[in-house]
Amino acid sequence: MARDDWKDRVAAKRRQQLESIPKDWILADIPDKSQLDISDYPRTCGLLTNRELEITESHVDVILSNVAKGNWSSVEVTTAFSKRAIIAHQLVNCLTEIFIESALARAATLDDHFKRTGKVVGPLHGKMIPYLLTSIIIFNALYRSPGFGYVAWIDKPATKNAVIADILESLGAVLYVKTNVPQTLGWGETHNNIFGRTLNPFNRTLTAGGSSGGEGALIALKGSPLGVGTDIGGSIRIPAGFNDLYGLRTSYNRLPFAGCVRPSGEGQNSIIGVLGPMATSMEGVKTFMKSLLSKEPWEYDALVVHKQWNEDEYRLADHNNGKELCFAIMWDDGTTVPHPPVTRGLEITKAALLQAGHRVIDWQPIRHPDICKLASQILGATGNTDVKAVLAESGEPFITTMAVDAENVDQENSAQISSHGPPGGLSASEYWQLNVQQSDLRQLYLDRWRETAAVTGTGRPVDAIICPVAPFVAPPHGKNTNYDYTFVWNVLDYPSCVVPVGSTVDPLLDAKKSRESFYSEADRRNWEAYEPSSFENAPIGIQVVCRTLEDEAVVGLSEFVDNAIKAYKA
Amino acid sequence: MARDDWKDRVAAKRRQQLESIPKDWILADIPDKSQLDISDYPRTCGLLTNRELEITESHVDVILSNVAKGNWSSVEVTTAFSKRAIIAHQLVNCLTEIFIESALARAATLDDHFKRTGKVVGPLHGKMIPYLLTSIIIFNALYRSPGFGYVAWIDKPATKNAVIADILESLGAVLYVKTNVPQTLGWGETHNNIFGRTLNPFNRTLTAGGSSGGEGALIALKGSPLGVGTDIGGSIRIPAGFNDLYGLRTSYNRLPFAGCVRPSGEGQNSIIGVLGPMATSMEGVKTFMKSLLSKEPWEYDALVVHKQWNEDEYRLADHNNGKELCFAIMWDDGTTVPHPPVTRGLEITKAALLQAGHRVIDWQPIRHPDICKLASQILGATGNTDVKAVLAESGEPFITTMAVDAENVDQENSAQISSHGPPGGLSASEYWQLNVQQSDLRQLYLDRWRETAAVTGTGRPVDAIICPVAPFVAPPHGKNTNYDYTFVWNVLDYPSCVVPVGSTVDPLLDAKKSRESFYSEADRRNWEAYEPSSFENAPIGIQVVCRTLEDEAVVGLSEFVDNAIKAYKA
Repeated sequence: MARDDWKDRVAAKRRQQLESIPKDWILADIPDKSQLDISDYPRTCGLLTNRELEITESHVDVILSNVAKGNWSSVEVTTAFSKRAIIAHQLVNCLTEIFIESALARAATLDDHFKRTGKVVGPLHGKMIPYLLTSIIIFNALYRSPGFGYVAWIDKPATKNAVIADILESLGAVLYVKTNVPQTLGWGETHNNIFGRTLNPFNRTLTAGGSSGGEGALIALKGSPLGVGTDIGGSIRIPAGFNDLYGLRTSYNRLPFAGCVRPSGEGQNSIIGVLGPMATSMEGVKTFMKSLLSKEPWEYDALVVHKQWNEDEYRLADHNNGKELCFAIMWDDGTTVPHPPVTRGLEITKAALLQAGHRVIDWQPIRHPDICKLASQILGATGNTDVKAVLAESGEPFITTMAVDAENVDQENSAQISSHGPPGGLSASEYWQLNVQQSDLRQLYLDRWRETAAVTGTGRPVDAIICPVAPFVAPPHGKNTNYDYTFVWNVLDYPSCVVPVGSTVDPLLDAKKSRESFYSEADRRNWEAYEPSSFENAPIGIQVVCRTLEDEAVVGLSEFVDNAIKAYKA
Repeated sequence: MARDDWKDRVAAKRRQQLESIPKDWILADIPDKSQLDISDYPRTCGLLTNRELEITESHVDVILSNVAKGNWSSVEVTTAFSKRAIIAHQLVNCLTEIFIESALARAATLDDHFKRTGKVVGPLHGKMIPYLLTSIIIFNALYRSPGFGYVAWIDKPATKNAVIADILESLGAVLYVKTNVPQTLGWGETHNNIFGRTLNPFNRTLTAGGSSGGEGALIALKGSPLGVGTDIGGSIRIPAGFNDLYGLRTSYNRLPFAGCVRPSGEGQNSIIGVLGPMATSMEGVKTFMKSLLSKEPWEYDALVVHKQWNEDEYRLADHNNGKELCFAIMWDDGTTVPHPPVTRGLEITKAALLQAGHRVIDWQPIRHPDICKLASQILGATGNTDVKAVLAESGEPFITTMAVDAENVDQENSAQISSHGPPGGLSASEYWQLNVQQSDLRQLYLDRWRETAAVTGTGRPVDAIICPVAPFVAPPHGKNTNYDYTFVWNVLDYPSCVVPVGSTVDPLLDAKKSRESFYSEADRRNWEAYEPSSFENAPIGIQVVCRTLEDEAVVGLSEFVDNAIKAYKA
């Protein structure tokens, strides 16, 4: 293939995308680049009716309830969210595949079913799910390529549905768009050679995060109330945290990944990429988990843990039924001190939990640098041979930075998560040694966690860890170079849920603090990078972390944290 | 180290073993080699009192109940089983470490507790568990080496308990002996350079199986009612099948392996070695599983699945509550046709299940040769570098055959399960490709299983597969060269339980059948190897197989099968 042929394929793909947008929904007046915060624009642009505004600004449970009562039809809900998604796309470039026509046809079928039977087909009936949010889910007529951000895959259709797609459809979900992701998925920002860069709706000079940055930006703009993403290093939680959303990294193999294609690292079974929801409310997260598991995904995916949604565990039977809990706050990871707004987010959470009658102690990080180094070694164990092969197929360049001005980049800041292995890759024997290290670190962490029973004052170990999502709130494009605060939980397989604290960067409250000593040069650079003005209006979130397969408990505890924060701020 | 130093270390170890045997328990009169079946000898040798016979011939639940009622003391139970274990050892060479003194001290402590409180300390109180049955469990004062059959590890003490040992002790179990295993654990027979060979109690010219052959022979002779083994290719199920016992291969990470040392393949996390019970009754299997899981092992082992014993699943809530089940019998695996007694075992099972009102259909094996080839490639991916290193440490030779006359061996028949990789080992990239193959095969098998709903006549997929344990009953020493019937379920991660059919080889019923065509040369060789006289008195067992993490269901269904067979034969 000629060297620049890939650009023609991209141009064709982008034309096709443009043609898939209903003409009536094209904005006459797109706000100028100088308008940083466009989060309110969909509401004020005049394209949505009052009823469409009411629908799109509702949480999942309200939508489900109104559809189930017959107040809103599926077509109506699908139209409203599709319209708002297209508006969002014109503001922040968050979509890839757009298939509204087939979504509306599907919604009409659901409405017919409701008219005939008086019943919805499943708990997600009429709920919009932006489809393939980190774009790993294959769907019949769709092409897998654009989702991954690989030019070579633009024209490679999937041969059958992913299990999660079948289950979502059986639950009555309507899939209508796919959202943007970075090339390889191995970045905490969203940019690729096909669709370009996704912007943060709260400040378009900031990143929307990644890899599910398109999904994060879309849901923040209420172009969807709920989406599915994947997370192997923070790909659900980073965009959730940067876009003021809730996002859950589930435990290894709790949700069905079968039939999804991985853009790299297929066969790497040590740090397992997982599916999880991103939503505008904790109810959305819970409904998603409960609905999915009610369909017994282990019947359809050979790797899924055979464990039903456990309502007792959700009601915190193992955590004193939610009374007098003890949370541990990890203020920093011993490597990089977070910026002031992040620390303020933790302080708000602490005050809220104390006010709600819970205990709060400090969490000492346990070998986090070792855990994160190991993660890079595992993900890079084959020297990225698969990525190189798929790039060579089309001739598109390997993206080595997320910076806007790519020519002026410090390569050391490059943070593609799997690019740290030796060029030739490891031997199987060396790889097994990494697995031993991972097991040992997981065992060490669990032992230490259990031993906190001696200091919590509750007689139990710490109920959950509260920690930052990243050492910064959404940074300017190209500056998200540290995933350690999310990555560490992937290595340990700890379910972790992002909860917004309902606040944004405040120039006064979050003034830069002088520091004398630093953990490292990287810590100093991170400190230097902070000025409140560079992070204007960025939302603040925190992570709630439990132990392996405590998915129900982390949902239950995150609801407690969310409610405590809301009560505290009210 | 001088070339033959290892022999001195072995001699010293064997002297130490001999000294650990109470003098009063040494048999004056050991039956001559020509007496093949010594299974009744412990009962008739006169060393055990009537009460000791009553105790040792009781199943687990009867023992627990008598100890809980105060009828039998722990010291009494420990003494009886220790005595019988020592008798067994003199007949079939089944023990390695013997620590009866400390076991009796521990039993006395349990008795004290009972006297003081009127209560037992846990559900396994006073029950004997031969410790480290495949010898992978490290215990405070004990040495890890002999269990593994590595000379280099003879003098290497463990620094702390394995999690399973701590949990068993907290349940009130008394650990008193360790049992023999093959060098590397990678054999379906039991022989090593330290302790030599374990014999089958029903016919001492036959193998006791492996790797837990010492455990199988010991429990068959009622030197213990219950033991723990490990299984990565059949190491629990093969000795269970060859010794007329029940044995359960649990799902990956259902029971805690943490703190156990693997004799090879550490860090190999694709086909995961598991713990499981071997017992004289299904009640023993169930009690073990339920007791262990009641201690929430996921709190102590970072890799254990957080899933309580699910009584609903055990009562077959997902299998029509045990009514009108449909079993599928796999008569052969498409590669090697089993010998006549094995087929008769399946026929007995089929007739019993039909009589009990269940449906029985045939199971077509799905790519079993591919699955088994993949298994060998995964286990051999590093070229056995770890095994070679530990052998080099002592200078002991690598055992390449289990034949008695080692000089007259066809190396192609060698069946060390991890010896099939390339000498230099694979790259991490090649290893990941094997993982992809494994996931694909697991997905294929699950899909096919689910699709049987169309043919069972119950509306559900097949409830369980019934299949051989091996293509033969216990063969003569050195002839167990095919583990495929067990290995396949390790690759798929299907829990599988061996159930004896209550019959042994019968020269008339199991006469050799003429065959015209063969699947392969190996199939022909297996057919040629059969004469009823070569397998005299060998017991017959079958496997019951469910899908991943259906551990409760496989226990429940195996009880159904066991009861049906007993009712049918009665």
